[in-house]
Amino acid sequence: MQTAFFYTPIGLLRTPYGTLESIPKTLGERPTAEGIIEIDPAFEAGLSGIDSFSHLLVIVAFHLSTTKPLCVIPPGQSKKKGVFATRSPHRPNAIGILTVELLRREETKLFVRGVDVVDGTPVLDIKPYLRHFDCRPEAGLGWLENG
Amino acid sequence: MQTAFFYTPIGLLRTPYGTLESIPKTLGERPTAEGIIEIDPAFEAGLSGIDSFSHLLVIVAFHLSTTKPLCVIPPGQSKKKGVFATRSPHRPNAIGILTVELLRREETKLFVRGVDVVDGTPVLDIKPYLRHFDCRPEAGLGWLENG
Repeated sequence: MQTAFFYTPIGLLRTPYGTLESIPKTLGERPTAEGIIEIDPAFEAGLSGIDSFSHLLVIVAFHLSTTKPLCVIPPGQSKKKGVFATRSPHRPNAIGILTVELLRREETKLFVRGVDVVDGTPVLDIKPYLRHFDCRPEAGLGWLENG
Repeated sequence: MQTAFFYTPIGLLRTPYGTLESIPKTLGERPTAEGIIEIDPAFEAGLSGIDSFSHLLVIVAFHLSTTKPLCVIPPGQSKKKGVFATRSPHRPNAIGILTVELLRREETKLFVRGVDVVDGTPVLDIKPYLRHFDCRPEAGLGWLENG
C-alpha cells in the first residue's frame, strides 16, 4: 500500500474565528457562523456549476493541530473516547469535513453558512452535498445520547 | 499558507469491487454494497466507543486516480461540469468521503454497508456521523435535477 498521500490546498476558509479558543464548541448543535471559501483562481474552472447546489461538503486540513492522540476527552465529557469516535481536530490525519450551506458565489469566492474552524484554514476539496449519498436522518448519536 | 499536507493511511477498505470498472456508477442512488474497514492495529485504541454509532464518515484516498482535470463529464451526462460540482474521483486532491452504516465491529475490523470504491482503497480517517452536523434533508440536487 502507498504509505503517504500528499495534498496541496485549493484555497482557504475565511471565518469569524481568529483564534482556536474563539470557536464555539458546538458538539451537539449545528454551527451557524458565516464564512467565505476563497478558491485559488487557478482552480476557477472547477467551480462551474457549483452554484446549482444548496449545500457543499468542504474538506479542510486542521493545520494548527500538532498532536495525534488516539484518545481524547470531548468538550463537556468526562471520559476519554477513541479519537475516531469523535470529531476532534487532533487525530492521526488531521482532516476535517464541514457541511455548509452555499449562500452565493462571487467568482472564486463561495459565501457559506455553517463554519466552525479557525480563519485561514486550508481547503483541500469541495464536493456537492448529495442527499442520497450524504444524508442519514436515521443515524443515531452514539455516546452523545448514550453516554 | 502551508503548501502541502501529508497523510498516512490508518487502514484500508475491503469492497466487492476488484476493478474500477466493476463499481456501479450510482450517482443518483445510495450505494448498498457491504465492505470491511480494516484498521491498522496500531490505531486500535482510537476505535474505542465507535460501536455506539450507527453511521460513519470515511475519508479515503482515491489512490488509483492519476489525472486532475478541472472539468469532467459525469456518468450519464453529456455536458462538462466543474469537478468541484461533481463527486468524480479525478480531482486536484483525490480525496473521497463515504457515508456508511456501521453493521458491527470485530476488533479492528468495521463491517459497513454503502461502499462504492475499489477493493484496497486506503482509509485516511473515520469520524462518527452526527445528524446535526452532517444531515441536510433540505439540500437540493443541483444540476442532477436541473440539468
